Amino acid sequence: MTVPHPRLSINQATIKYANLETALRVTADAGVQSIGLWREPVNEVGLDTATKMLTDSGLRFSTHCRGGFFTLPAGPERDAALEDNRRAIDETAALAAAGAEGSTAVLVLVAGGLPEGSRDLIGARERVRDAIGELVPYAQSAGVTLAIEPLHPMFGSDRCVVSTLGQALDIASDFAPEAVGAAVDTFHIWWDPQVLEQIARAGREGRIATYQVCDWATPLPADVLLSRHYMGDGVIDFASLTSAVVATGYDRDIEVELFNADIWNDDPAAVVARTVASFTATVSPHLP
Amino acid sequence: MTVPHPRLSINQATIKYANLETALRVTADAGVQSIGLWREPVNEVGLDTATKMLTDSGLRFSTHCRGGFFTLPAGPERDAALEDNRRAIDETAALAAAGAEGSTAVLVLVAGGLPEGSRDLIGARERVRDAIGELVPYAQSAGVTLAIEPLHPMFGSDRCVVSTLGQALDIASDFAPEAVGAAVDTFHIWWDPQVLEQIARAGREGRIATYQVCDWATPLPADVLLSRHYMGDGVIDFASLTSAVVATGYDRDIEVELFNADIWNDDPAAVVARTVASFTATVSPHLP
Repeated sequence: MTVPHPRLSINQATIKYANLETALRVTADAGVQSIGLWREPVNEVGLDTATKMLTDSGLRFSTHCRGGFFTLPAGPERDAALEDNRRAIDETAALAAAGAEGSTAVLVLVAGGLPEGSRDLIGARERVRDAIGELVPYAQSAGVTLAIEPLHPMFGSDRCVVSTLGQALDIASDFAPEAVGAAVDTFHIWWDPQVLEQIARAGREGRIATYQVCDWATPLPADVLLSRHYMGDGVIDFASLTSAVVATGYDRDIEVELFNADIWNDDPAAVVARTVASFTATVSPHLP
Repeated sequence: MTVPHPRLSINQATIKYANLETALRVTADAGVQSIGLWREPVNEVGLDTATKMLTDSGLRFSTHCRGGFFTLPAGPERDAALEDNRRAIDETAALAAAGAEGSTAVLVLVAGGLPEGSRDLIGARERVRDAIGELVPYAQSAGVTLAIEPLHPMFGSDRCVVSTLGQALDIASDFAPEAVGAAVDTFHIWWDPQVLEQIARAGREGRIATYQVCDWATPLPADVLLSRHYMGDGVIDFASLTSAVVATGYDRDIEVELFNADIWNDDPAAVVARTVASFTATVSPHLP
């Protein structure tokens, strides 16, 4: 069995159908040291139980997924979304405190798409900034970093109006770096002609809240959300992207997050083993 | 019947299954004044016949589609692609001369994707610039403008390594504006946080070779190439994009190019009528 790189973290979405107990067990059993969790499986057992289970696993906690959905106009739906984000911030702080030494309190944010019937992309983006501004004091008092995740532009209308790393950094620049950073996910930004300079900028500005890796391949599946692949199975150059991240001084965990129907239907332990091998072949060689 | 806007041009791909004779006839019969052609239907009848048919139609000629496929490494395949682009330049010049007054000699270029097995996106982009450099003298002597078309980033690996208008303009900047410009297509660039400033820049630099409109909607179809919609059926804000193009002084034809299986299976005359109505509702109000 390949010994996992010490900085590899399994994002729980990679083994989506595993409950929290199974996800923690297969990750730890593989010798992986860190995990990123999702809100649904945590809330399935309750936060108190989840934090105990995480502590018992001996794993670090790398990110919590996810908050966001900030594009709604003012009203009860938006208020409810913000309140839900405050709960996500609380969960993030509790889980980071329960994880092993080196855990990080990072909440990944997906901005949300255009509201039904709207074509006002600029307005939607302004509401994202406003919502983050409302959450920042709460996040700061909880010691949580909000990680704005730019999503690939193919999700620009229905999932996330933040489409590039540069745009995420522009939004983040209104706030302190320990409060608001960006999620650097190879799948979403590999194509960007500005990607290397924006990674360098993110590092300079202290904004790399998390580095996540997976691969891009075509043809895209019918549901393009599920088009994420093991590293090495697609076209992304992990050498240049990882080296750019390393050059900024980023020294924390690196998550693998795979949305892929075939991978989800596979045995979780097999998926973790394959993820370890894929990471070892494509990312580890570029880490110090 | 709605009177078509005088600057509307039907790109022949919108009525893909119509041959050249039908395409010219249904376009002229609808009162549309301009058409953009594709190489295959032109070459089906031969260039001499095609130019005569175009002249007889009384239509302007707005663009020729398409050249490109510039990402191959040095070798006979790349040489053949460049030679084929020279033929496309010749066709463009002949068709522009045969079209009614106000025709434009613009050849749309799709850069090409990553070569099979390659992950070298930066190298592929350099080869695009090199190939354009090789074609520029030929294009200039023919009086043809090469229009680099940035394609949506979801095509970044398999069709076109040029993904943003800013990137297209960066490549074009090595060459004279009358030789190399950019295709500004709403479908491909609507999501870009820099879109308005890059349209303004394209205008300032004299690089808007063609303005093309169609809409974006989700969910994407299984073949994402066919996800283009009539204006108004999706989320693109044609007011802001068209106003930005108009503000640059762009005063030439505006093409509608729809790749969509349902539209292709519809009657060509009905498609043109629907295109006219869609343009009238969404684009015309923003033209001077």
